Parts: sequence; C-alpha cells; structure tokens
Amino acid sequence: MNIKDIQKQLSDFADERDWNQFHNPKNLAMALSVEASELVEIFQWLTPEQAEAIMDSDESEHVKEEMADVMIYLIRLADKLNIDLEEVVADKIIKNGEKYSVETSKGSAKKQTTLKEKIKNLIEL
Amino acid sequence: MNIKDIQKQLSDFADERDWNQFHNPKNLAMALSVEASELVEIFQWLTPEQAEAIMDSDESEHVKEEMADVMIYLIRLADKLNIDLEEVVADKIIKNGEKYSVETSKGSAKKQTTLKEKIKNLIEL
Amino acid sequence: MNIKDIQKQLSDFADERDWNQFHNPKNLAMALSVEASELVEIFQWLTPEQAEAIMDSDESEHVKEEMADVMIYLIRLADKLNIDLEEVVADKIIKNGEKYSVETSKGSAKKQTTLKEKIKNLIEL
Amino acid sequence: MNIKDIQKQLSDFADERDWNQFHNPKNLAMALSVEASELVEIFQWLTPEQAEAIMDSDESEHVKEEMADVMIYLIRLADKLNIDLEEVVADKIIKNGEKYSVETSKGSAKKQTTLKEKIKNLIEL
Repeated sequence: MNIKDIQKQLSDFADERDWNQFHNPKNLAMALSVEASELVEIFQWLTPEQAEAIMDSDESEHVKEEMADVMIYLIRLADKLNIDLEEVVADKIIKNGEKYSVETSKGSAKKQTTLKEKIKNLIEL
Repeated sequence: MNIKDIQKQLSDFADERDWNQFHNPKNLAMALSVEASELVEIFQWLTPEQAEAIMDSDESEHVKEEMADVMIYLIRLADKLNIDLEEVVADKIIKNGEKYSVETSKGSAKKQTTLKEKIKNLIEL
Repeated sequence: MNIKDIQKQLSDFADERDWNQFHNPKNLAMALSVEASELVEIFQWLTPEQAEAIMDSDESEHVKEEMADVMIYLIRLADKLNIDLEEVVADKIIKNGEKYSVETSKGSAKKQTTLKEKIKNLIEL
Repeated sequence: MNIKDIQKQLSDFADERDWNQFHNPKNLAMALSVEASELVEIFQWLTPEQAEAIMDSDESEHVKEEMADVMIYLIRLADKLNIDLEEVVADKIIKNGEKYSVETSKGSAKKQTTLKEKIKNLIEL
C-alpha cells in the first residue's frame, strides 16, 4: 500500500461516517498535533537509553499505533489541501541540504537561517 | 520517491552531519510534535472557512514546509525504531474500522473504546 | 502582581486591540499548546544534563519568554471560561494525592488509574 | 493559595515520591506540552460556538483538570529553573505592548517583529 492508496482509503472511511464536517484543515492540524503529543507522552519520563530500547518494551504496540495516527492525520490533511506529500518532502530535503551544509552543521544541532530568509526579514524591516 | 527512498536519504543526511547523537527516539518524537505545532500555529487564529482556503493564501508554501517537516521526523523515527510506516497505518485503519463502525459513528466525532480495551481496563482493576 | 491582576491586564490588552474575535476557547487552547511546543523546542536536542543547565546558557531569556507565553494563554483561557486557576490546581493536587499514593508511586513514573475512574470505564461498558 | 504556596506543595509531593529523578527541565517541558495537547483534544472537533459553551457541557470537569495539569507542570518547571512566573509574565506583557501597539494590531492577529528583533536578525547576517 502506498500513500495514494492510504489517502483513498481514509477518504472513503470519512465519507462513510459523514466525518467531513469535522475534517476541516484547522481541526485536522489540531488532531495531528494531539497524536504527536500522545507519542511524546510515551517517552516523557524515559532516559535517552530507555527510549532507545522502547521497541523491546511492552510499549512497542503503543508506539506503532501513535505513529500510525500521526501518519493518518497527515495524509488526511494532505488530501484535503491537495498536497503531494512525497513531493513536498523531496523539496524540503533539498532546501535543508542548502540550509544545513555539511561544513556548518557537522556535529551541531544549531538552527540555521539561509541568506534568502535573512534578506526576506531585512526587507520587511 | 517512496517512503523507503526518503528514509534512506534522511539517514544519509544525518550520517553526513553526525546528527545521530541527537536523533534518539525521545528527541525525534519531541521534534515531530514541535513541527506539528508549527503547522497548528498557521491555523490558530483562522476561522474554519479561512482554514479551508489556506492554499489560496500566502501561507501555502509555509503549510507545505511544515507538513514536510512532520513527515521527515516521522520517517526518521520509523527508521530508528525499525517500524514499517505503511504497515502500521494499514493495521490501524483496520482497527479503526472495528472501533468506529459506520452505525455507531455516523455523524459523530465521539471517541470510542472497543470491548477489548474495556475488558483490558477491567482486568487491571 | 497576582493571577487576578494579570487576568485583568490581559483582558484589557485584548479589548483595546479588538482581539476577542480571535480569543475563543478553541483558539486559545491551540495557542497555549503552540507556546508549550516553543518551550519544548529549546530542549529538544539537549541531553538531560544540558537541559539542567539551561538558565546558565544564552537561552535563559528565551525560556522565560516561552514560559510567560504559556502562562499568558492559560490565564486568558481561564478568564474566558470563568475558571479559578488556583482553585482547580488545589483540587487537582488533592486528586493526584489519592491517585499517586506514596506507597504505589515511590520512584515510579507509571500512570495510575483510580478505582473511581476504573468503575466509570466499567459502567460505560 | 498563591503560586509560591503551590510551588512548595508540588515540590514536597515530588520529594515524597522520589520523582526528582524524572523531573528534569526537558521532561517537565515535554509533560507540559502533552497536557496542553490533552486540553486541545477536548476542542479539536468542536465548532467555535460549541467551544464557547464548553463549560455548560459534560466536559467542564475535564477542561478544569487539564488546565490544572498545565499549570502544575508550568509551576514545577519554574521551580526547577528558579524562575518567578509572575515576574516573567509582567515583563512579557510590557514587551507585548511594545510589539503589538494598538495602532498596528487593532483587529489583526498578525505576528509582529520588533525593530530590535529585526536588527538582531540583521547583525547575525
């Protein structure tokens, strides 16, 4: 099953249940963030080491379900907004490659701002 | 490009920048939820009608980028945890079909608990 | 300045800017969660040790501002919903004391369910 | 009960349960954002009108509890970081007053950037 197939399945699922009244982009974005937080909740009190071993714990099914829920709302939102998820991800990876060059970012998690973004901020001055 | 290809690209990207030290599952789940909130922020003051029209506004690129960021961290986390995203989504759709039957859920956004989940809670009593 | 004073100040601030049209409870809850995520973002790539030392870093002002933003939206929402924050916190601390007894919770971050909550789940069966 | 009293109560609560091992600033920020999302979840499928009436619904206790949980983790984090919440809120309200003047912000939810912030961005160019 690929993303397009999942998109169609989720759309039919919502149609059958008359859920389009709830699935406007604002609500779907909220639902997506709520599911992301349910994933975070699993990890919140764990040490980094315990987090690494999560799939060997009795939370492994829980992790899978929360990740599925995030994906489901993301695909549903993409469908509603007519966005091609694979395309926007490919574009973003190229942009990140420019923003976070190997030279400036090696071993550093520091957020970068591109020259283009800085000039944009400057013009708005 | 499919999910497996993206996964490989993101993994190489992180390797080249020596970012695996930051990309433990706990941190990736946090980053995922932060990106989801950046998406929510675009919608927070909009009416449902304005939200529907977001792709005709000057926020359309912003929406694409935030959705790409959510997807990127989700795929990255799946890679780290050795989870097949398409598989867990397919499983979750089946589970949701049992939980939210057309009969009980038509036109209702009410959260459901399956009999199995209720019995699980009962046993833990 | 106490919570009631802050509440009044924030209400006047919104009135003067004609912001009540945006400040419905749904939007305020979203804004609150977005600010909470901006706080999380500061910590996302840090080790627990680096996080402990955050107030000695150049992120200390940033932390204060994000915490202030969370508090501001929480107080604003409480005002809109006519909720006494200090009272609900006092009630919740009592409830948590019952839920997380020293005996069952010493050294454990495990989520507890009270007997009352379990029976509530059972009745809904 | 004021914030200082609550802070003391929560600190004693954690001490008695040996929870300081879990309550580092990173984990507390995560927990705060998770509670904020639990609040968002209550509102996610509601219309703005239904959200306005939430305290007349059977979710009113739930809203109070989630708001209390957000407040509890915010106060707990402030305690750990030695931050005076009332002071940082008072400072932020002054800053917001400069950032969102009545003239530029009347009836508009548009995010503003202060001249100071723009110059800061420029210098980092």
